[in-house]
Amino acid sequence: MITTDILIIGAGPTGLFAVFEAGLLKLKCHLIDALPQPGGQCSEIYPKKPIYDIPAFPEVLAGDLVDNLMKQIEPFQPGFTLGERAQTIEKQEDDTFIVTTNKGTKHHAPIVAIAGGLGSFEPRKPILENITQFEDKGVEYIIRDPEIYRNKRVIIAGGGDSALDWSIFLSDVASEVTLVHRRNEFRGALDSVEKVQELKNQGKITLITPAEITALSGNDHLESVKVKRGEEEKEIEVDHFIPLFGLAPKLGPIADWGLEIEKNAIKVNNSLDYQTNIPGIYAIGDVNTYPGKLKLILCGFHEATLMCQSAYQRIFPDKRYVMKYTTVGGVTGFDGSKKEAPKAVVKAIE
Amino acid sequence: MITTDILIIGAGPTGLFAVFEAGLLKLKCHLIDALPQPGGQCSEIYPKKPIYDIPAFPEVLAGDLVDNLMKQIEPFQPGFTLGERAQTIEKQEDDTFIVTTNKGTKHHAPIVAIAGGLGSFEPRKPILENITQFEDKGVEYIIRDPEIYRNKRVIIAGGGDSALDWSIFLSDVASEVTLVHRRNEFRGALDSVEKVQELKNQGKITLITPAEITALSGNDHLESVKVKRGEEEKEIEVDHFIPLFGLAPKLGPIADWGLEIEKNAIKVNNSLDYQTNIPGIYAIGDVNTYPGKLKLILCGFHEATLMCQSAYQRIFPDKRYVMKYTTVGGVTGFDGSKKEAPKAVVKAIE
Repeated sequence: MITTDILIIGAGPTGLFAVFEAGLLKLKCHLIDALPQPGGQCSEIYPKKPIYDIPAFPEVLAGDLVDNLMKQIEPFQPGFTLGERAQTIEKQEDDTFIVTTNKGTKHHAPIVAIAGGLGSFEPRKPILENITQFEDKGVEYIIRDPEIYRNKRVIIAGGGDSALDWSIFLSDVASEVTLVHRRNEFRGALDSVEKVQELKNQGKITLITPAEITALSGNDHLESVKVKRGEEEKEIEVDHFIPLFGLAPKLGPIADWGLEIEKNAIKVNNSLDYQTNIPGIYAIGDVNTYPGKLKLILCGFHEATLMCQSAYQRIFPDKRYVMKYTTVGGVTGFDGSKKEAPKAVVKAIE
Repeated sequence: MITTDILIIGAGPTGLFAVFEAGLLKLKCHLIDALPQPGGQCSEIYPKKPIYDIPAFPEVLAGDLVDNLMKQIEPFQPGFTLGERAQTIEKQEDDTFIVTTNKGTKHHAPIVAIAGGLGSFEPRKPILENITQFEDKGVEYIIRDPEIYRNKRVIIAGGGDSALDWSIFLSDVASEVTLVHRRNEFRGALDSVEKVQELKNQGKITLITPAEITALSGNDHLESVKVKRGEEEKEIEVDHFIPLFGLAPKLGPIADWGLEIEKNAIKVNNSLDYQTNIPGIYAIGDVNTYPGKLKLILCGFHEATLMCQSAYQRIFPDKRYVMKYTTVGGVTGFDGSKKEAPKAVVKAIE
């Protein structure tokens, strides 16, 4: 059992900064994240993209933002359970919580702060009535092992980088690659677009645009799809249909924790401390919602800070915390480190 | 008359960042500040001190924070009225406001955002019943022109850097310098403490500690003060008494604008947009108060951001603003500049 003061679910920028604010209050944090590294979307989806609206950073790469936050919280020695998804929560008789991941790791804390961002990212699925019956029987939304397509007839749908890149890759593996997109224009790296054009010219990729898949058929396994292009509709025999329409975030198991949910986000009390309807559980950053909510990293920082103050009061109902500015009081790490501004001397004159 | 969309009173970090968030919404800002330069306390009081709790800055000097913010808002070309204090506000028939400074400069805007920090800094005065009658007649709280003390008998009270440094300086100017402090210990730069010790040893500064000034006497002008040290009390003839007890912030004329005030701060609606009791006037950053308020720069950044969204709705009640992430939409300056992430191409394959 991992024990801590504040258990943070989600190790994106908001969750990471919460560790710092908790540390100033001498509260320890542990973070759970489904991704294999801290940083959330910033690390996983756009580490090399610049962000322009982090206060006092005219421009910062998302990956550098995460690196800076990791450096800032280092003195407070957070624990991490990475590559595991928070699955269940059980309230204990003493009002503390046990959170268990999909891999069975158990965490015990008096405070749970959900900083889950937009949730975990899952593939967007096309709306085709019988698609679920073919999942893993010819329909795959994510390519896990390209070898299963060797010498097979594959149809890919989509117009972005994934569709382009996998069409290129599979043109060397599969016996037939057909790329279907609802527009003539593709959106992706220039290289990829030009390479697909070249492979199409060589007859290695069949392109059908602007077109859509409208039906799937087969018995046990997918056998053919119907492609509609303008008024014309035709059946194509295939072994695999791979719709690559990007990833969409999903709240995941947290949605079943008894929290008030609105528009796929957790309702919180924004007039005080970003607590949810369950006392002791807070939601901060993009995962929460309240009137006027903006899903901005800088808002998550503020919410994390107020959450920590409230958590402190909950853990120590009898103590009165007097805030000290870091400029005045410095930062004392749990590792014994101390950062502070050069101090004036106090000295008698005799 | 200066006209703008959002008139910001106070050019500290919160006011400066508001310019950026307003700029993303294509709203122009103008800032008024009593200080001669932007940055508020960060520039005026502690530019060389490190701050440790700005998110993603493990350490940043207050002056550098201001420089970064000035760079970040540059594309949005804010206007500044510096060295002037916002004095009066008049609501117009069309619900806009005219704000006039102590020097008569007039500003017209539909939105006023007060980002006044702790207010303007004024000297702390000792509690002596007749002290006001000697102000500028022998009692000065701030040394404006050291020459007025030439060949005069001066008594300085205080135990910090100002008291130490002015005692040193005036020991070469005044005929007599007496330094009174309620403790034996002084708090200041080591250099200054040692220098005062040396001047005391040389007989150039008379030191009375631990002691306090308890009374002032004189007719038109200050003639003597009573100094109490332990049980002993004695009268000292002086021309000037200079209490240097530091600066304390005061809300100033804003306190008379009809805003709801609590504990020297402006009450705002923190459950929505940080608006005050007067529609169209917002208060953001250290100047405001609400349940759970923390006077932290990072909270001011959040408040400024939500304020701008609300201001936009107030200015354009019929438009619906759809937020775009800067990572996706970039930043388009009013100066024609454009910053954005490298874009994917959109290209047909034929």
